[in-house]
Amino acid sequence: MLLHLMTWREVETCLKASTGIMMPIGSTEQHGPTGLIGTDAICAEAIATAAGEIAGAVVGPTIGVGMAQHHMAFTGSMTLRPSTLVSVISDYVDSLARHGFERFYFINGHGGNVSTVRTAFQEVYAQTSIDGGGDRPRVRCALRNWYQQPRVQALARNFYGDKEGYHATPSEIAVTQYVRPDAIKVAELPRPPPPAGGFSFTDAEDYRRRFPDGRMASDPSLATPEHGRELLELAAEDLAADYREFLRD
Amino acid sequence: MLLHLMTWREVETCLKASTGIMMPIGSTEQHGPTGLIGTDAICAEAIATAAGEIAGAVVGPTIGVGMAQHHMAFTGSMTLRPSTLVSVISDYVDSLARHGFERFYFINGHGGNVSTVRTAFQEVYAQTSIDGGGDRPRVRCALRNWYQQPRVQALARNFYGDKEGYHATPSEIAVTQYVRPDAIKVAELPRPPPPAGGFSFTDAEDYRRRFPDGRMASDPSLATPEHGRELLELAAEDLAADYREFLRD
Amino acid sequence: MLLHLMTWREVETCLKASTGIMMPIGSTEQHGPTGLIGTDAICAEAIATAAGEIAGAVVGPTIGVGMAQHHMAFTGSMTLRPSTLVSVISDYVDSLARHGFERFYFINGHGGNVSTVRTAFQEVYAQTSIDGGGDRPRVRCALRNWYQQPRVQALARNFYGDKEGYHATPSEIAVTQYVRPDAIKVAELPRPPPPAGGFSFTDAEDYRRRFPDGRMASDPSLATPEHGRELLELAAEDLAADYREFLRD
Amino acid sequence: MLLHLMTWREVETCLKASTGIMMPIGSTEQHGPTGLIGTDAICAEAIATAAGEIAGAVVGPTIGVGMAQHHMAFTGSMTLRPSTLVSVISDYVDSLARHGFERFYFINGHGGNVSTVRTAFQEVYAQTSIDGGGDRPRVRCALRNWYQQPRVQALARNFYGDKEGYHATPSEIAVTQYVRPDAIKVAELPRPPPPAGGFSFTDAEDYRRRFPDGRMASDPSLATPEHGRELLELAAEDLAADYREFLRD
Amino acid sequence: MLLHLMTWREVETCLKASTGIMMPIGSTEQHGPTGLIGTDAICAEAIATAAGEIAGAVVGPTIGVGMAQHHMAFTGSMTLRPSTLVSVISDYVDSLARHGFERFYFINGHGGNVSTVRTAFQEVYAQTSIDGGGDRPRVRCALRNWYQQPRVQALARNFYGDKEGYHATPSEIAVTQYVRPDAIKVAELPRPPPPAGGFSFTDAEDYRRRFPDGRMASDPSLATPEHGRELLELAAEDLAADYREFLRD
Amino acid sequence: MLLHLMTWREVETCLKASTGIMMPIGSTEQHGPTGLIGTDAICAEAIATAAGEIAGAVVGPTIGVGMAQHHMAFTGSMTLRPSTLVSVISDYVDSLARHGFERFYFINGHGGNVSTVRTAFQEVYAQTSIDGGGDRPRVRCALRNWYQQPRVQALARNFYGDKEGYHATPSEIAVTQYVRPDAIKVAELPRPPPPAGGFSFTDAEDYRRRFPDGRMASDPSLATPEHGRELLELAAEDLAADYREFLRD
Repeated sequence: MLLHLMTWREVETCLKASTGIMMPIGSTEQHGPTGLIGTDAICAEAIATAAGEIAGAVVGPTIGVGMAQHHMAFTGSMTLRPSTLVSVISDYVDSLARHGFERFYFINGHGGNVSTVRTAFQEVYAQTSIDGGGDRPRVRCALRNWYQQPRVQALARNFYGDKEGYHATPSEIAVTQYVRPDAIKVAELPRPPPPAGGFSFTDAEDYRRRFPDGRMASDPSLATPEHGRELLELAAEDLAADYREFLRD
Repeated sequence: MLLHLMTWREVETCLKASTGIMMPIGSTEQHGPTGLIGTDAICAEAIATAAGEIAGAVVGPTIGVGMAQHHMAFTGSMTLRPSTLVSVISDYVDSLARHGFERFYFINGHGGNVSTVRTAFQEVYAQTSIDGGGDRPRVRCALRNWYQQPRVQALARNFYGDKEGYHATPSEIAVTQYVRPDAIKVAELPRPPPPAGGFSFTDAEDYRRRFPDGRMASDPSLATPEHGRELLELAAEDLAADYREFLRD
Repeated sequence: MLLHLMTWREVETCLKASTGIMMPIGSTEQHGPTGLIGTDAICAEAIATAAGEIAGAVVGPTIGVGMAQHHMAFTGSMTLRPSTLVSVISDYVDSLARHGFERFYFINGHGGNVSTVRTAFQEVYAQTSIDGGGDRPRVRCALRNWYQQPRVQALARNFYGDKEGYHATPSEIAVTQYVRPDAIKVAELPRPPPPAGGFSFTDAEDYRRRFPDGRMASDPSLATPEHGRELLELAAEDLAADYREFLRD
Repeated sequence: MLLHLMTWREVETCLKASTGIMMPIGSTEQHGPTGLIGTDAICAEAIATAAGEIAGAVVGPTIGVGMAQHHMAFTGSMTLRPSTLVSVISDYVDSLARHGFERFYFINGHGGNVSTVRTAFQEVYAQTSIDGGGDRPRVRCALRNWYQQPRVQALARNFYGDKEGYHATPSEIAVTQYVRPDAIKVAELPRPPPPAGGFSFTDAEDYRRRFPDGRMASDPSLATPEHGRELLELAAEDLAADYREFLRD
Repeated sequence: MLLHLMTWREVETCLKASTGIMMPIGSTEQHGPTGLIGTDAICAEAIATAAGEIAGAVVGPTIGVGMAQHHMAFTGSMTLRPSTLVSVISDYVDSLARHGFERFYFINGHGGNVSTVRTAFQEVYAQTSIDGGGDRPRVRCALRNWYQQPRVQALARNFYGDKEGYHATPSEIAVTQYVRPDAIKVAELPRPPPPAGGFSFTDAEDYRRRFPDGRMASDPSLATPEHGRELLELAAEDLAADYREFLRD
Repeated sequence: MLLHLMTWREVETCLKASTGIMMPIGSTEQHGPTGLIGTDAICAEAIATAAGEIAGAVVGPTIGVGMAQHHMAFTGSMTLRPSTLVSVISDYVDSLARHGFERFYFINGHGGNVSTVRTAFQEVYAQTSIDGGGDRPRVRCALRNWYQQPRVQALARNFYGDKEGYHATPSEIAVTQYVRPDAIKVAELPRPPPPAGGFSFTDAEDYRRRFPDGRMASDPSLATPEHGRELLELAAEDLAADYREFLRD
C-alpha cells in the first residue's frame, strides 16, 4: 500500500492495525556506462513496494536523492549535503510520528546513504534523550540495505561471482532492467582495471580518478531482467519477514 | 527524458544541446476524502514528464514531499519545514549546476510550496549577489504551477465552474485518475460548508477547523480520467512552450 | 502607538484591549538615481505609524533591512540572506507572542520581501503543526504591501499612468518626499530603455544588466510631496480598515 | 549622512573619500516604569547620527532589536536569539563589504548586545582566518558603547552620582527625553530595593525576580531633556573623534 | 608527539616531513557500575599517544565528548547532538588543513561515534565535490576503532571469551585501569540478564530499560591493569602500522 | 573529582550534595616561540582540577579547542567557528542539566573565548526566556578567567612587571612548565617590537602582521616551573572560594 495512493482516511484506518511504515531511500547518481542514474531509487522503491505488499505495510514516499558526493564528478549525479539529508529524514519522521506512526523501516538502495541515515536517526533520538522527551512520541527507526540481505547476496554471488563488484553491480542493474525494461542500455564495457589504492575514496575527484567509468570492479553486462525479477522478489520476501520481526521488538 | 532513466554519458551528451532542466515538485498531503495523498507529486511528475517529451528536455527527480504544514492535522500528510525545503532545492540546483545545467524550470503541483521555492531561489542567488560570485556558475530558476497555466484554468472552469474550489480540486483529482486508474477512490461527498472566515488559514489545527474533511470548496466527484488526460496534455503543451521561452531569455 | 515610545506597563495595558500588532518591514536598497536607499523602510514605517493611529494599534519596530539580493550590484544596497530574515521574523513573533500578542500584521514596503516573509510565517506555523503545539501560543500572521492596496494603486495610476513602473516608482518616491522633505534628490532621468527580456531577473548582476540605473520602467521625476501625502493617507486608511477585519477573523 | 537618506550614486561618491561606516545598534526592551521600550535604539540612532555629522561619516540603518533575552518577562520586550543577531550582523557587514566598505564602527546602546556583537565580528573574521580569505574583502569592526565613553561617564556621574544605576539609567532616559520630548513618561518611582544577590542574572524570570520594576538601582526621575542634550552631544563628539582614530589604524 | 606539547615552529617543521595527523576521539558516558565516565576518551587518547610515538606522528587534541545520546539516562553521561559533532570535526579538519595537514586519522574509542564521524567526513568532502573545490586543500580522512583491530579483538577474546560483551567491556575497562590506576573502581556485578529484544536500542530511555546497570552483556570485573597494558600496546602497534599504510595511499 | 574518573553511580551520589560543576575551557593555538600549543587547555584543566579538589566540586571534561581564529596564521593553531562553540557549550549544559546539574562554572584559559562563551550562555537562557521555559531545568552559568583573578594578577605583576604582556605570557607558560616539566621549550626570544597600531587586531593575517612571532609584548623566558606552581595554587584557591560564592547565590 503506497501512502501516495491512499486517502487520509485510509491511512487513519491502517494506523489502527499497525504503527509501522516502510520508507524507501535511494540516490540519483552515475551507475557506470550502462546503469541508470536513478538505479538506487528505482530499486529501493520497487523492492519496498513489493515488500509492503507481502507484509501488508504502508510504504511512504521514496527519498530519491541521497548522499552521493563522491559521484559528483560524473554528469547527472546529484547529492544532498549530509546535513540536508539529516533534516529531510527528521522532517519525514516527525511528520509521520505526529499521526501516530512509531516504527520506521528504511529500505535503502545506496551504500553512501548509510552513515547519514544512521546519523539522522541519532539526531531524532537525541532530542528526546537530552530533554527527557516530554510528550514527544517515541519512535524506533531501522535501516536495511536490500542488496545485503543474506539470501540476496547469495543469489547475486551465484549469478555473478566476483564480477558483482561494488558499484554499478549487475544485481542492481538487473533489478532496474526488470522494473524499467524500456530503459535497458548497452555499451562496450572493458574490464575495469584494478583500482589504484583499493576501494576506499574521498571526494568526487578522487573517486573518478580511481574508477574512471564509474563502475567499481563490476561487470553489469551480465545483468538480465529475469535476474532482476528473482533478486527483487527475494529481497522483498526477506525484508517483509524482517519487517515483521522489527514490529514485534 | 527522465534523468533517472539516463546514463551519465547520455546526460553529458544532452548538456551539449541544452543547459536547461525541468524539475517536478509536489507534496504528500491529504486531498479530501477521495483524493490521493500523493496527488500533487503524481500530477507534477506526470505533467513534467509529458512536457519534457514535447520540449525535448531532461526531467530531474521529483521532490515528493513539499511544504504542507497546514495539512498536518490530517493523517498521512507530511511536510518539510520550510528551511529544510530551501536546503533541498539549493542542493539540487548546486548539484546540477556543477555539471553545467544553468536553467532550472520547476513544475509545481502544490500552492503551499510557492513561497518556499521562491525563497530557495533567492537563497541561491543571494550567495552570488553578496560575494560577487567568483567562478560560481550563474543559474536561472523559474517556478510554474501547472494548474495556473491560462488554458488549463479555462478548461477546468469549463469542466467544473465554481466547483473547482481551491484544494482537492476536481482538476487535480482528474489528473491522478488518468495517471493512476488503479487508485480511483469513491466516497460520499457532502457539499462543503462555506468556510468560517474565508480561505485564509494559519497552522494545521486552524486549517482543519475551517475545512473539516480537507477540501476547500471543491467537488472532486466531478473528476473523470478523461478530464485528467485533457488537462494533463494541455498543461504539458503550455509548459513546454513556456519552457522554450524560458531557455531563450 | 509606537512600541518604541511606550513603557512596558503601557504595553501591558494595551494588550488587555487587543492582542494585535502592526509590524512595518522595508528594505535598504538602491531606488534609482533619485530615490533614497531607505525608501522602502521609510514608507513602511510612516504608513504603519499612520495606520496605527487610525486603528488604535500598537506598531512594532521597523525591520529596516530586508531581502534585496537582486539590488546588491548598486552601491549602498544591503540584504539579509533569506534564511536570516526568516530567523529575524520568527524571533520577533516568538518574542511578542510570549507576552500575549496573537495577531501580527506586517505592513510591507518591498516586493522582494514577500516570499521570504511568507516562508517565515510558514516556519512559525510549522513548529506547531508538526508537534501539535502543546502550550505554545497560537498566532496568526498577515502580510500586506501598502502599494498594492486597491485604492492606492488606483491613485498611483491616476497620478502616473504607465510611468509608475515597478521599482523606484514615483509613488514610493513621493511618500519619501512627504516624509523626508529634507532629502529630496534631483537628477537627470533619461527614459529607461525597455528591459532586455522582460521584468524577470535573477541575481544582482543580472538585475543591473537589465536595469542599468536601478529603475524598472518608472519615472520618479513625477513624484511630489503632495502626492506622497495623499498616497500615505490613503494607504493608512485602507490598511487600518483591513487590520480591523484581520482582528475580527 | 544617513545611508537611508542617500542615493546609490551618493554612496558611491562617498566611498571614494572613505571606506568607513557607522552602524547604530540598540534594543527593544523594558526600561523601567518610565523608560521607553525603544530607549536603546533611540539613543544609539540619535548619537550615531550626530557623530556622523561631526565626523562626516555615513551612518547605516539602526539595528533596532538586539539581544535582550533577560528582559523578556516584561511586556513588550523583544529579543533576537544570539545566533540570529550573529547572522544579521554578518549579513550587514557582508553586504556593505561587497561595495567596498572596510571599517565598521558599531555604536551600541545596550550592554546586553556586547558579547553577541563581538561574537559576530569573530564569526566574520573566522571565515577568512580559516580558509585564508582568497579574494574576500578584509574588514575591520569595532564596537563602542556610547554610555561608556569616559567624558560621558563623568558627566553622568556629575548629574546623578550613584543614582545612575545599571539599567533604565537617568542618562539614557534623558537622551530619549531630548530626542523624543513628545514621549516623556512620568510615574511614581519607589527607591528600588538593593537586589538580592548582586547585579548578575541569568534568564528573564531570574531578572524579574531580582529587579521587579525593571530598573537596576537607577533613579530615572532625575533625567531632564537638557541633560539628554548635553550627554548626546558629548557622546557624539567623543565617538566622532574615536572614529577618526579607528579609520587611521 | 602531542600537538598540545609542541610549539608552532615545531609543528611547522613536522609538516615538512609528513602531512598526516592522528586525532583521538572518545566519549563521556556511563560505563556500567565500575567503568569510568571518561573511559572512551581515556582509551582513545592513551592509545593514540602510544601509536603516535611508534609512527612518529603528531597527535591532535582529543575530542572528549562524542555522540552518546543513548546513554543519557545514566547520570553524568554527556553528548553532542550529531549535528554539533559534525561541525566540530569539520572545524578541526578545516583548521589543520589550513596549515597543510592532509591526512586525518581518527582513532576512536566509542562505537556510537562511528556514523556521525563518517557523516562529518562526507560533509567535508561534499563541499569540494559539489563546487569543484577551487583552491581548497584536498584532505583524506580515516576512522579506526582501536578495539576492532584484528589482533586486539583476538587478544580480548582470549582474555574474556563471551564475557567481553558490547559496552563497558573488560577490554576498555582494563585499558583505563592501566592508564589511571588511581581510579580503579570495584562493585558487586551481577551477571547481566540477557537483554529483552537483542542488542539494538533507540533513545536513552529505551537503552536503560534494556540494560539496567549500563553494561551490555559484559563482565568488566575480569579486567586487570596488566591486560590493559597488553591491549593498549597491541592496539598502538597495529594502528601505527595501519597509519603508515594510510599515509602511503 | 574529575567527571571522567567517576562512575555514573558516583555522579548520582555527588548530585545529592551539590548541583554545581566546574567546566574547564582552553584553546589550541600558538603561544609564541616557546609556548605550547595546548597552553590554555593545560592551564585551565590543571587549575580547575586543583580548584575542584579544594571546593569538593565535580570537574567536567575540558573543552580543548576554543575560539582562536586570530591565531590561525601560525601553524598548528586550531579554532572552532564561534557558532560551533556556542553549540558545543549548549550541548554540554543541556546534557548535564538533564541529570540535575544547575550551576555551571566555566574556568577559562583563553581571552579569545570570552565573548563566544557568554553568547552561548545567552543562547541557553534565551530558549527559556522566550518560551517561558515550561519544565526545562533552570540553569545558571558563570565564566571566570583564571589569569584575571585579583591575587593571580598581583602575583604575575610581582614576578614579571610589564613583561607579562598579553599573549604567551610568562604566567601561563610558567603554569605549563609546572604541569608538564617534560615539555619545557627554550628559544632565543628577541624583545618584541611595539605593535603597529596597538593591541587590537582582526583576523589571522592581521594578527600575524602585528605580532610576528606570536607573542603580544610578553617575555615568556622569565617563566619558571616554581612560578607556575605558585600561580596555579593561588588561582585554584581563589576560584574555589569564588565557586562557593557562586553556589550560594
